[in-house]
Amino acid sequence: MKVFRAIDEVRGYLNRKKMEGRIISFVPTMGYLHEGHLSLVRFAKANSDVCAVSIFVNPAQFAPNEDFNRYPRDEARDLNLLEKENCDLVFIPSADEMYDNDHQTYVHVRKYSQVLEGAVRPTHFEGVATVVLKLFNIIQPHFAVFGQKDAQQAFIIKKMVKELNLPVEIKIRPIIREADGLAMSSRNVYLSSEERKSALVLNQALHTAKALVETGERNVAHLIGKAKEIIYQSKIAQLDYVEVVDIEIFERIETITKPNSAYMLVAARFGKTRLIDNVVL
Amino acid sequence: MKVFRAIDEVRGYLNRKKMEGRIISFVPTMGYLHEGHLSLVRFAKANSDVCAVSIFVNPAQFAPNEDFNRYPRDEARDLNLLEKENCDLVFIPSADEMYDNDHQTYVHVRKYSQVLEGAVRPTHFEGVATVVLKLFNIIQPHFAVFGQKDAQQAFIIKKMVKELNLPVEIKIRPIIREADGLAMSSRNVYLSSEERKSALVLNQALHTAKALVETGERNVAHLIGKAKEIIYQSKIAQLDYVEVVDIEIFERIETITKPNSAYMLVAARFGKTRLIDNVVL
Repeated sequence: MKVFRAIDEVRGYLNRKKMEGRIISFVPTMGYLHEGHLSLVRFAKANSDVCAVSIFVNPAQFAPNEDFNRYPRDEARDLNLLEKENCDLVFIPSADEMYDNDHQTYVHVRKYSQVLEGAVRPTHFEGVATVVLKLFNIIQPHFAVFGQKDAQQAFIIKKMVKELNLPVEIKIRPIIREADGLAMSSRNVYLSSEERKSALVLNQALHTAKALVETGERNVAHLIGKAKEIIYQSKIAQLDYVEVVDIEIFERIETITKPNSAYMLVAARFGKTRLIDNVVL
Repeated sequence: MKVFRAIDEVRGYLNRKKMEGRIISFVPTMGYLHEGHLSLVRFAKANSDVCAVSIFVNPAQFAPNEDFNRYPRDEARDLNLLEKENCDLVFIPSADEMYDNDHQTYVHVRKYSQVLEGAVRPTHFEGVATVVLKLFNIIQPHFAVFGQKDAQQAFIIKKMVKELNLPVEIKIRPIIREADGLAMSSRNVYLSSEERKSALVLNQALHTAKALVETGERNVAHLIGKAKEIIYQSKIAQLDYVEVVDIEIFERIETITKPNSAYMLVAARFGKTRLIDNVVL
């Protein structure tokens, strides 16, 4: 497994592979890898000749009051995990390698960056879209793989790729959960054991809403009400939102028109840790 | 000469050329070609295997009060001129081919898009940067050629390319002028014969400032004063700005420290027609 830290070097290496006709896949991550990330790597590896993974905790997507500095990092562990997955290449740039002191260029997917996660984190998606665009331009993969857990991020990246005519295909893979249903997240390590137990209400709320839709419920207000009831069973959950949006246009809807046409999205804080989760209704 | 109107078709064709190892050059234009554009095409053709030119009057870079609808267009004449230059490929997309109804993705080179032209035209450079990024992603050239007349545009595009890690080299070519010194521009056709004569003050002002620097003048306020004196000799010129900026960082300076280290930039309206020009001091 090759490890690159310089943009020119990883680009040169991958250009040669492309000229040899190799199919390049790419999984961008912020490291501290869990089974969710590894499921993306396995998919990428199985469908390409060269599987490239990036590890970069992107300062541009954290607001000053957020957890950039304490975001968990363990490069040695990550490299070991990727080696075991037969990953071909890891790109681990420094912040200085990725951003000039006077960095001024940002990409913005307007309407979809201000709602839901964007309402709570107003500069977040500009940071995400910008770094993903930079990484795509550096790696120039045939396809890139993202997890469904960050549903709004996945939607925004697909929209950006389409609207900027980027020559890369975006593949979205399912959420991976712990045995008890908690969606895997690098931030789960922040949780105390009490918070960890409480956080199960997120998956329970989503699961209940999905079961209701499967038995014929179509009223979104009712579904959201039921989900909130379950989340409020936790004494410590601080709910940011439960929302239902159309799967194609990511806008709030009032009625589920047909199965598998909407996401229910939830975000809540447990102590200092903010978690998100979602399900297709 | 091949003419493409569909993104998928031009991309497919150029991908095959790239896989054959051909060097692709690209000259993006808004059409109504003049000697300035053709000088870029000649340079591109001389330094590549496949010279691609785009013709697209980009709605995103015109404000509602600007001249998008009356911007001069003559596709047959443009194609004829490009054929004579042995241009290999012309891409002429419709606005619908380039932008979704619900287009939401824009790239913004913040600090440099708000000054000078950006102060007068606040959404202009966002439109320019976005369409240039889209065209680069569609054409995927090895290098692209721009004219020095739009100095701030050239600076912003180079900055965007660097900061987004785009795999394209940007070449800037000199301003081409009419015999009497007027910088070539598609908008010159708007000028009445009186306006056309008056507009010569722009080049005269820049020329005088350059001559003063060559004889030792270093004080920017004095240079700007002299330039304004000349422009005000025209009864009909409405000056937007005369400014001097550092050539490397595009910020206003008070003193010329060494030759060829600054641009003097000017913008003025003659009747309804807004013209820009610049010179290296």
